[in-house]
Amino acid sequence: MSDKKPLILITNDDGITSKGITELINLAQKLGKVVVVAPDGPRSAQSNALTVENPIYSQKLPSNNENVELFQCSGTPTDCVKLALNRVLKRKPDLLLSGINHGSNAAINVIYSGTMGAVFEGCINQIPSVGLSLTNHSKNADFSATLPFFEAIVRKFLEHPLPQGVCLNVNAPQGEIKGVKVCRQTKGYWTEEFDARISPNGNNYFWLTGSFINQELGDQETDEWALANGYISVVPTHIDITEYSVLDDLKKHGYEKI
Amino acid sequence: MSDKKPLILITNDDGITSKGITELINLAQKLGKVVVVAPDGPRSAQSNALTVENPIYSQKLPSNNENVELFQCSGTPTDCVKLALNRVLKRKPDLLLSGINHGSNAAINVIYSGTMGAVFEGCINQIPSVGLSLTNHSKNADFSATLPFFEAIVRKFLEHPLPQGVCLNVNAPQGEIKGVKVCRQTKGYWTEEFDARISPNGNNYFWLTGSFINQELGDQETDEWALANGYISVVPTHIDITEYSVLDDLKKHGYEKI
Repeated sequence: MSDKKPLILITNDDGITSKGITELINLAQKLGKVVVVAPDGPRSAQSNALTVENPIYSQKLPSNNENVELFQCSGTPTDCVKLALNRVLKRKPDLLLSGINHGSNAAINVIYSGTMGAVFEGCINQIPSVGLSLTNHSKNADFSATLPFFEAIVRKFLEHPLPQGVCLNVNAPQGEIKGVKVCRQTKGYWTEEFDARISPNGNNYFWLTGSFINQELGDQETDEWALANGYISVVPTHIDITEYSVLDDLKKHGYEKI
Repeated sequence: MSDKKPLILITNDDGITSKGITELINLAQKLGKVVVVAPDGPRSAQSNALTVENPIYSQKLPSNNENVELFQCSGTPTDCVKLALNRVLKRKPDLLLSGINHGSNAAINVIYSGTMGAVFEGCINQIPSVGLSLTNHSKNADFSATLPFFEAIVRKFLEHPLPQGVCLNVNAPQGEIKGVKVCRQTKGYWTEEFDARISPNGNNYFWLTGSFINQELGDQETDEWALANGYISVVPTHIDITEYSVLDDLKKHGYEKI
């Protein structure tokens, strides 16, 4: 196996046995040597959470392909990336791919997403990083229409490096795909988020649920519009979340005179 | 009790019994009516993680102050904010305060922080939101020097509302405080992050640890510089993480022609 092949780190938040990561491994094999370090079970909506109150376990799994190494990890997607970079890989990977997520990571979901948490962790460590998601939560989601597009997007991404600190959040709609749109993150929030129930012991408990409120409905520059209209959304995202536009205002308001 | 008093929602990631949240409740009482919905134990480094695989429990705790209501929650800091907005509070709060965190949330820590996860959740829901942290992990950390500064910062924040989607990440150094600096997030990352051990059963496991690498050492506009030099850092942060500067480049590179 040539060392000149790109080294690709793959992770996700649905766990190493999910269909989406299997599809992504197959895709990535065409592009380079693949090392997978992924959670041993579902870790959806884990954002950039780290495991700090408990130890982390990791195991190498058998692989029937010499181009693919597989490791499962007891931690979050971000833990997986940290473990890969510090304990598994011999050198910094050339690319990090996270997904393919079963479910949308568009709009504000980007900040809750474990898939994108792993992408940000790659980006923090100066690795070109892309998150790939399909807007279908089903365990048996059909990824076939998305795969040629995702492969082309990843090839384009490798061809044209982004500035340090910038990564890609790519989401695909279910069904026929019309093409690709470069978008911004849609403004919006989730509402009516809890289903209240009573346990057999008489205790109240809640399940997180709810509906997304799109505050920019119909705006063709947003990722939600692209997805609703049959396009894959490509949103460049960053890890420096300073709001530079208000720095001078804060100084004018006298914060530094406190 | 007058309804004209501001309604202040308080949460944190160190748990409802921590010293930091007790200090923050005392501070906030001077400014309005306080409702606390905070984790029932430590939830550090939970970022914007949500509890989706398990139900969430919540209990009202006794309060010896008619101006303060206390609720503990089995979820993450972000869950606490969602639960407060949807199930606990009768109206949208006028202010969300998260902390006072025992430990720094400056630089890239902002994206791992549960304290700041709660702040982003408030911001997503259009509530003026501030995260307050002290760079001291000790359970018995001394907050006394910071409190007059934090109170003045929160009063300033209420006086001069920020644009929607922007919130504040405020960190204080331990020891004597020289003043307040309006800053940007320092570029940097964590390295050598795992302590490898062997369990009594002979299994390998890891504890997350490591050192922060400051890529902008000595840059006086960064939050790490402010903290290292005795100043409180005030960093405006945003929830729209689109990197607008590269949208046109991505179009030029032909993503939309895929």
